[in-house]
Amino acid sequence: MFTITLPSSANQDAIQHKINTKTKPLGSLGQLENIAEQIALIQQNEKLSIEQPYMLVFAADHGIAAHGISIAPQAVTQQMVANFLHGGAAINCFCRSNDMAMMVIDAGILVEPDNHPMLLKQRIAAGTLDFSQQNAMSREQAVTAIEYGANAVNHVYQQGTNLVAFGEMGIGNTSSATAIMASILNLPIDECIGRGTGIDDQQLSLKEQLITQGLNRHQASMVDPISILTAVGGFEIAQIVGGMLKAAENKMVVLVDGFIATAAAMLAVEMYPAAKAYFIFCHCSQEAGHQRMLNHLDASPLLSLGLRLGEGTGAALSLPLIRSACAFYNDMASFEQAGVTV
Amino acid sequence: MFTITLPSSANQDAIQHKINTKTKPLGSLGQLENIAEQIALIQQNEKLSIEQPYMLVFAADHGIAAHGISIAPQAVTQQMVANFLHGGAAINCFCRSNDMAMMVIDAGILVEPDNHPMLLKQRIAAGTLDFSQQNAMSREQAVTAIEYGANAVNHVYQQGTNLVAFGEMGIGNTSSATAIMASILNLPIDECIGRGTGIDDQQLSLKEQLITQGLNRHQASMVDPISILTAVGGFEIAQIVGGMLKAAENKMVVLVDGFIATAAAMLAVEMYPAAKAYFIFCHCSQEAGHQRMLNHLDASPLLSLGLRLGEGTGAALSLPLIRSACAFYNDMASFEQAGVTV
Repeated sequence: MFTITLPSSANQDAIQHKINTKTKPLGSLGQLENIAEQIALIQQNEKLSIEQPYMLVFAADHGIAAHGISIAPQAVTQQMVANFLHGGAAINCFCRSNDMAMMVIDAGILVEPDNHPMLLKQRIAAGTLDFSQQNAMSREQAVTAIEYGANAVNHVYQQGTNLVAFGEMGIGNTSSATAIMASILNLPIDECIGRGTGIDDQQLSLKEQLITQGLNRHQASMVDPISILTAVGGFEIAQIVGGMLKAAENKMVVLVDGFIATAAAMLAVEMYPAAKAYFIFCHCSQEAGHQRMLNHLDASPLLSLGLRLGEGTGAALSLPLIRSACAFYNDMASFEQAGVTV
Repeated sequence: MFTITLPSSANQDAIQHKINTKTKPLGSLGQLENIAEQIALIQQNEKLSIEQPYMLVFAADHGIAAHGISIAPQAVTQQMVANFLHGGAAINCFCRSNDMAMMVIDAGILVEPDNHPMLLKQRIAAGTLDFSQQNAMSREQAVTAIEYGANAVNHVYQQGTNLVAFGEMGIGNTSSATAIMASILNLPIDECIGRGTGIDDQQLSLKEQLITQGLNRHQASMVDPISILTAVGGFEIAQIVGGMLKAAENKMVVLVDGFIATAAAMLAVEMYPAAKAYFIFCHCSQEAGHQRMLNHLDASPLLSLGLRLGEGTGAALSLPLIRSACAFYNDMASFEQAGVTV
């Protein structure tokens, strides 16, 4: 479906030399040095630039949410999408505060929202089916969702965007992400599951029971990323997978947010390992399994602020760090330029 | 010397209520919620604002540096100050990238630099004396340095600045900071000392020996913050202490950077415990003792990026997070406003 190649490493020594001769002790800018090197490899330019950074928030509903295993009822997906379109959610505030454009993608919420300039409708269906009982979607829907996600990224790529961040909204989607994690990492559910945005013990126990039931039912068929998405969903996760892969194909910088977005990133990397070279991991969330996912991807996220909200918030908050990494790479004097004794 | 009072807690319940009724799960914005609450208490306004944020980089030389216990020779303080004034250092890049003004304060570097619009000359002397052999400065110099630091903060306060960050440059200043830490926390040197910007084993051993020698010599006299500064220096640390205290008196938000700035913050809090209510800790540096200092201050810094550069870099990189905390506090919709089911 995609043609994804690793960034050329031909200039790697020159890039490293440029970073090492800046007026600072070797390695003293820590993770920002890694980010600068990664973007320099991706962009293959003397000067790094972040052009029209875009936050894509994919929203969808989940059949499994009907069991009441989230702190909020299913209607909140739709209400929060309305909140996004009115500019009142956390992700709106963080995008505005950090000079980032934002688009909301309806990947399949229960009730179709009205048209809005900030909204891209790419509905697969009115929510997935309950994956504890049946497949969340058909294989055709999973493939279509990946194509739709790619389409959303191309939409902004054609406007000149070279950095794209992935956020999500979907009551119940930590259940899908947990099932994806358990399947890929081959771990028992209780090492993957968490409290999402804050459920109680009883909800947690029901959530675990339902996910276990779903995985037992689908285990034999969950053999690759598309069949995993087919089995446990969701539409927003599948579209994010497609978006991430298209962004990697386009050689864009990809910001990966929290637990849900990282589950999508794991699927993307399973499909195309080279995609990971374009990913910057932004935030280690409070969700219990997230650190293990990050370990699996050998990722050290930039932030750890105790967020557990999703929406792409950790990615939006990371953007200034990425701009600062580009700024030091582009503008900082070398020892020679500044006449500083090495 | 200062009149520092805690922010009024009269509105604390209203502030907490405002944060809790935003369209997000309770507590789900993690540390940003703490920052928003802290600034709301400091500013006592319905709308939070960060006005003309200023980075103050205090530079000075250290007599102890003549022993060669840093990766760079002493002349680098002066060379890096020139680099700051030409806009070529990491801190320049990060201030520009994050919309922060910057001023350099000559608190006492070896060679007096030429005048420059970005430079404030508040020289105490041409470097401190070698604290392994004698007091780093006189008590009068320590008191004057604190007053000078306060003066630098008032300089920007009178221009309308309500947030000030403290950075530093001074070859050898981790030795002073280590001695300050050992004295305040009453810890053996080897639990405080680190490699600064990256010294080797031999330099580390000499550094430990010299600091130990200095502390043994001065121990009896190091009974309070001013006598600690007198004994082990440095001029930039003493001016930062004064600057932090004046900022707290002015009810400004104070960004505390890494190991050196945190040593100054510890001294400031020893003098006026209420000052801590105005401090935001920005970065946990790679320097070994920094985490222990932060624990002593009960501080959870915003970032942990593996920086070990100083200059105020961690504070400049934190500013967008602080702006984002203000943005969600000011602009995010409540459940009621957005019609989202609680």
